[in-house]
Amino acid sequence: MDKIYIVGHKNPDTDSVCSAIALARFKELTGAENCVAVTAGKINKETEFVLNYYGVQVPEVLESVEAKQKLILVDHNEYGQAVGGADQAQLVQVVDHHKVGGFQTAEPLYVRIEPVGSTCSIVAQYYKEKGLVPEKAIAGILLAAILSDTVIFKSPTCTELDKVIAAELAAIAGVDPKTFGIDMFKAGSNIAERTPQSMIEEDFKAFTMGSHKVGVGQVSLMGMDGFEDVRANLNKELENYRNSQGLRYICLMVTDILSDYTELIVKGDNPEEVAKAFGKELVNGSVELPGVLSRKKQVVPPMTTYFSA
Amino acid sequence: MDKIYIVGHKNPDTDSVCSAIALARFKELTGAENCVAVTAGKINKETEFVLNYYGVQVPEVLESVEAKQKLILVDHNEYGQAVGGADQAQLVQVVDHHKVGGFQTAEPLYVRIEPVGSTCSIVAQYYKEKGLVPEKAIAGILLAAILSDTVIFKSPTCTELDKVIAAELAAIAGVDPKTFGIDMFKAGSNIAERTPQSMIEEDFKAFTMGSHKVGVGQVSLMGMDGFEDVRANLNKELENYRNSQGLRYICLMVTDILSDYTELIVKGDNPEEVAKAFGKELVNGSVELPGVLSRKKQVVPPMTTYFSA
Repeated sequence: MDKIYIVGHKNPDTDSVCSAIALARFKELTGAENCVAVTAGKINKETEFVLNYYGVQVPEVLESVEAKQKLILVDHNEYGQAVGGADQAQLVQVVDHHKVGGFQTAEPLYVRIEPVGSTCSIVAQYYKEKGLVPEKAIAGILLAAILSDTVIFKSPTCTELDKVIAAELAAIAGVDPKTFGIDMFKAGSNIAERTPQSMIEEDFKAFTMGSHKVGVGQVSLMGMDGFEDVRANLNKELENYRNSQGLRYICLMVTDILSDYTELIVKGDNPEEVAKAFGKELVNGSVELPGVLSRKKQVVPPMTTYFSA
Repeated sequence: MDKIYIVGHKNPDTDSVCSAIALARFKELTGAENCVAVTAGKINKETEFVLNYYGVQVPEVLESVEAKQKLILVDHNEYGQAVGGADQAQLVQVVDHHKVGGFQTAEPLYVRIEPVGSTCSIVAQYYKEKGLVPEKAIAGILLAAILSDTVIFKSPTCTELDKVIAAELAAIAGVDPKTFGIDMFKAGSNIAERTPQSMIEEDFKAFTMGSHKVGVGQVSLMGMDGFEDVRANLNKELENYRNSQGLRYICLMVTDILSDYTELIVKGDNPEEVAKAFGKELVNGSVELPGVLSRKKQVVPPMTTYFSA
């Protein structure tokens, strides 16, 4: 039987990786044994902590696929964010929680997109709808992804459904969501262990805003201890990254989860234009955004509106 | 509370209309009372028979919507097939069984697309997943739409799921699917009562094939009695329709459900090119296609392949 790869977006995050693994297991439980979870790049420290905690094997990295490969996309629906060659593959399913970005298919397929906080909340519903209870490890990684994408339920993208499902999963996984979430974010945010490049690439996406190509990354930290030590190198690396990607602006959300605060570092020829998008002044090359946690809901929309005007 | 219109495609068929009505009722049963089923045009004779049989009110016709109107699209996902103004509306949900045609949204929304025979098979699953049993009339119109789109389970688009769901619905609706299906198709195909224009427009869609714009309609008949009487007028009207729509080719599938046979009438400058797409000769301006029932699976793919080569 033809293999079907289940794969999240490039620069994989915990939701991308865990939704692929949990969906592959669901497929196996419901009789489809040819589905294999893979990743579109190396997993990050946070995801490594989660898989290690529950003794789940790290999926194989697959950075490109051949034409006609059967593919299930999780946590994204735009070919631009997908594994190389995805636009020539045969999509059989899409499971996602982002806006629809104009993908096309040659044949009807399964698509399920819901405006919830995490793709894993949708995968957990597949289990519920079939009357299946995920094993402890699968429940644990599904919960981890919900905690990751909703920043322990604090992000404005978090819905009631995410909370209900997370509570059910936590009971199976045998952890307290808040404690587990903080441990997970700490594992992912150890500044001393990280290179500036890894902080930029951890969760980086490029957007078209008006006529500009703008990159926005996000690094989530548990407190700002040690951050000032890396700032100079991070600034230099952001300039390099901007040039290599040909971006009008590059922005990095440095989000402190403990204090619900984001510092948006901005590089580009007129960085004060980005500050204006938030009705703010630029302070030492950054925009201060108290209460901001979500790129999707709180950072990209005002910038897109400003640069499209 | 803002009204949300639930609407199928232009030239509405039974699946479009019944999935909108049954989804609106499901929304009401699950606490959302602001969803209203409408149609993107006048309903056809077949749908009229179905709604009348179960005493269900005909939805209001709404041929265009204002900008920012909240919309749920059923049985289609391409703005080109949708009610006027849909591309400026705020999509909140899409429920469909067609290929994905590249639609985009500004925000995440609910999308559920499955490769099954009828949108109503997906709507019936919403009821099942919530443990709800549709009322007799709703079960009846859901069944009717499945019978219509799958040509009483004979179309290659029909899946096992469609058959299972149809059997469950038939038990609630108190009808024999085959008898009811034949009565329904008869009501929709009374040739003597119909104008050539209504036969062309009954189920008409335009496609881009290679560099050509090609229209393909389908009229489903229960036997060919009386068809020769309308052929001359139908030929004339097809030429008119082709010119008014600026089409390279216009094709009409005249499908006799009783004998599993389609005659494809072709108009255009080189109609024999269309015959070649099926590896056939043109006979009196038509291509004879025994065993062909599905435009989506059996007619559009070979034509698209031929004209894209």
